Amino acid sequence: MPRYDRFYSTLVRGIKASDIRELLKIVEKGGVISLAGGLPDPSTFPREAIAEISREVVEKYGEKALQYSPTRGVSYFLESLRRFAGEIGVSVADSDGLMATVGSQEALYLVGAAFLDPGDYVVTEEPAYLGAIQAFRMRGARFLTVPIDEDGMRTDILEEMLRRARSEGLVDRIKMIYTVPTCNNPSGTTLPGDRRRHLLELASEYDLLVVEDDPYSFIAFEQRDVKPLKTLDGEGRVIYMSTFSKILAPGLRLGWVAGPEELISKMELVKQNIDLHTPSLTQYIAAEAINRGVIRSHLPRIREVYRRKRDIMLKALEGYMPPGVRWTKPVGGMFVWVWFPEEVNSRKLLERAVEKGVVFVPGDAFYPNGGGENTARLNFSYPSPEELREGVRRLAEALKEMLASSRG
Amino acid sequence: MPRYDRFYSTLVRGIKASDIRELLKIVEKGGVISLAGGLPDPSTFPREAIAEISREVVEKYGEKALQYSPTRGVSYFLESLRRFAGEIGVSVADSDGLMATVGSQEALYLVGAAFLDPGDYVVTEEPAYLGAIQAFRMRGARFLTVPIDEDGMRTDILEEMLRRARSEGLVDRIKMIYTVPTCNNPSGTTLPGDRRRHLLELASEYDLLVVEDDPYSFIAFEQRDVKPLKTLDGEGRVIYMSTFSKILAPGLRLGWVAGPEELISKMELVKQNIDLHTPSLTQYIAAEAINRGVIRSHLPRIREVYRRKRDIMLKALEGYMPPGVRWTKPVGGMFVWVWFPEEVNSRKLLERAVEKGVVFVPGDAFYPNGGGENTARLNFSYPSPEELREGVRRLAEALKEMLASSRG
Repeated sequence: MPRYDRFYSTLVRGIKASDIRELLKIVEKGGVISLAGGLPDPSTFPREAIAEISREVVEKYGEKALQYSPTRGVSYFLESLRRFAGEIGVSVADSDGLMATVGSQEALYLVGAAFLDPGDYVVTEEPAYLGAIQAFRMRGARFLTVPIDEDGMRTDILEEMLRRARSEGLVDRIKMIYTVPTCNNPSGTTLPGDRRRHLLELASEYDLLVVEDDPYSFIAFEQRDVKPLKTLDGEGRVIYMSTFSKILAPGLRLGWVAGPEELISKMELVKQNIDLHTPSLTQYIAAEAINRGVIRSHLPRIREVYRRKRDIMLKALEGYMPPGVRWTKPVGGMFVWVWFPEEVNSRKLLERAVEKGVVFVPGDAFYPNGGGENTARLNFSYPSPEELREGVRRLAEALKEMLASSRG
Repeated sequence: MPRYDRFYSTLVRGIKASDIRELLKIVEKGGVISLAGGLPDPSTFPREAIAEISREVVEKYGEKALQYSPTRGVSYFLESLRRFAGEIGVSVADSDGLMATVGSQEALYLVGAAFLDPGDYVVTEEPAYLGAIQAFRMRGARFLTVPIDEDGMRTDILEEMLRRARSEGLVDRIKMIYTVPTCNNPSGTTLPGDRRRHLLELASEYDLLVVEDDPYSFIAFEQRDVKPLKTLDGEGRVIYMSTFSKILAPGLRLGWVAGPEELISKMELVKQNIDLHTPSLTQYIAAEAINRGVIRSHLPRIREVYRRKRDIMLKALEGYMPPGVRWTKPVGGMFVWVWFPEEVNSRKLLERAVEKGVVFVPGDAFYPNGGGENTARLNFSYPSPEELREGVRRLAEALKEMLASSRG
């Protein structure tokens, strides 16, 4: 057998398999409650409608739905999507480029490949979405991280940071601000309107792209008076990406990206070499789901499912957590962010929690530059109501024991 | 509006949009016959079966088929595929790694990302598959190209080339031999058994990976007594990739890769960051199509459609082409490779052909290191029988005029 080590690229040598993921693989097999995942509740999938649509699009459009299609996407899908985006408040102009991707993860990867060189800086929230950190790291990106509060990115700190970067001559290496401004993963925060405007002003002043990752807007269960950055963008700086994973079904792996045509065309050049195009069939299914009103009519139900689950988790946190623990109150999305007391190391807490029969993701995983050792991400979308209550109870018990032994 | 130029990565600056593709986009709109494409004949899609299966897998397995799934692939699909691969003569051992990809294009990209560094060499046929050249170029790869004859790669020349590379101290930078040994795209050639063994011996001697790209074996319409390199591999050097694009439907974008587990696990690490996973739904559809025997029972029909079309193209070439033109006689696949007389420049010929109402792909596009100016790739899978005859007639007419004017 060859010594395979000789064949590995520097790129793949640089990817570390997550130790957390390994731990979770093991424990998820047992009777352990997982607050660690990020899966939608399968009861939110409009299963019968998708079954029927799948059959019908193959019957009706089979010659095209089963055939190769353009890298940019199936035109029937792109036209349906452009209309749908407008209806849900995302201003995609006729002159904007629009592309179908294999989930929004691919859109993130394409952004990295098209716009980042090794050593370039990406500005992002701290904590930030792990999939984006990993995609951008594939291009050797570095991160400038902006702390959050209960309302998301502290744009006042962003402003200071950019001013300092300019005075240090770093600003040319800063390419973009990456953000999940609405119902953030992992933190569950939503950026208020004034911070959105501030962020866009800073992007303009420092000549940065803004990458807006927005999987959750359409299923926010409490409306906030906020518009997507894409809709507020007067300069053509925002690349907007979203997905059908949360409003239809993640198993389709269908995402999309919209923005200035020149930028999207560069991402298309990369995508051509990665996978030629996004599956035609899934694009036809989504187009039909849009055009038959399946998605629109289904959204209230999805919102209701997640609102109830969030309420259960928040109530359990209030009921069980000891003093000194804070958490976010998300208006949508799938996650609650928890700040434990400073002395708590959440990886150590995880070990104790496993013994109690519950797991979560330690928050430091979402800090690209380190930090966040006393934080955690809790998922409320997938567990059952009973698991949510019992999972939080077990976690609180582990925490109390840990605090007692460390304070004792 | 920002000057977007500042944001482009060196990677995306290095990708050149194909001038051929631009030309083809324009002409394919008119009444021009295209022998340039690479599309399967949609009459070969088992449309009714796929329509029915699509509905049923969503109904039956919806909770999983519509949900996120592992990066490696849906286990129901992978198990079905492992069995199916065995049935069709591809030895995938229990210890081998197996992964679902978004078409085999993604498998190519993952091979490049996991195993190539800038400046590394890939050995390949000349002409070679364009999608592979482009995927490997994304990693800054260089190419050592081995001429073909009617039987594919000249492994005697490969041997000389490797010996020379060793004497020049280059051999450590050579990572792999990439080949489409059966019904090659673009050349239509099939490598005989003795050359397959020779190739594997050389890979062993020079410690190289072998990347076997095999979309066409299962629809070869004339059986040859050849086994996949994967099946002949005694050392664990072969990474094998194939696709459901030609045996089921390309619109699913479902490919797969099999090989030593250590190597596949490295590709998985990259894929995780690119798109998380291949759509679950398409994997369930393919698994059902395998398990219900849809693919097996449908293969004879696909082979028959393509055998007839190949015969029509070969007959037209014999009937219309002037002396001095040679072409391959493929036993499968979708392409015939043509060598025009030395003095013919096929890009110039293409301009004349467009006027006559036919297009093809000039062969130099498939020569990563230049050359092949007098060659062309002709597609026989997509055009109708009448278009095949008339297309070849028009091409021959353009060629005769060109020869007359250059020789006159």
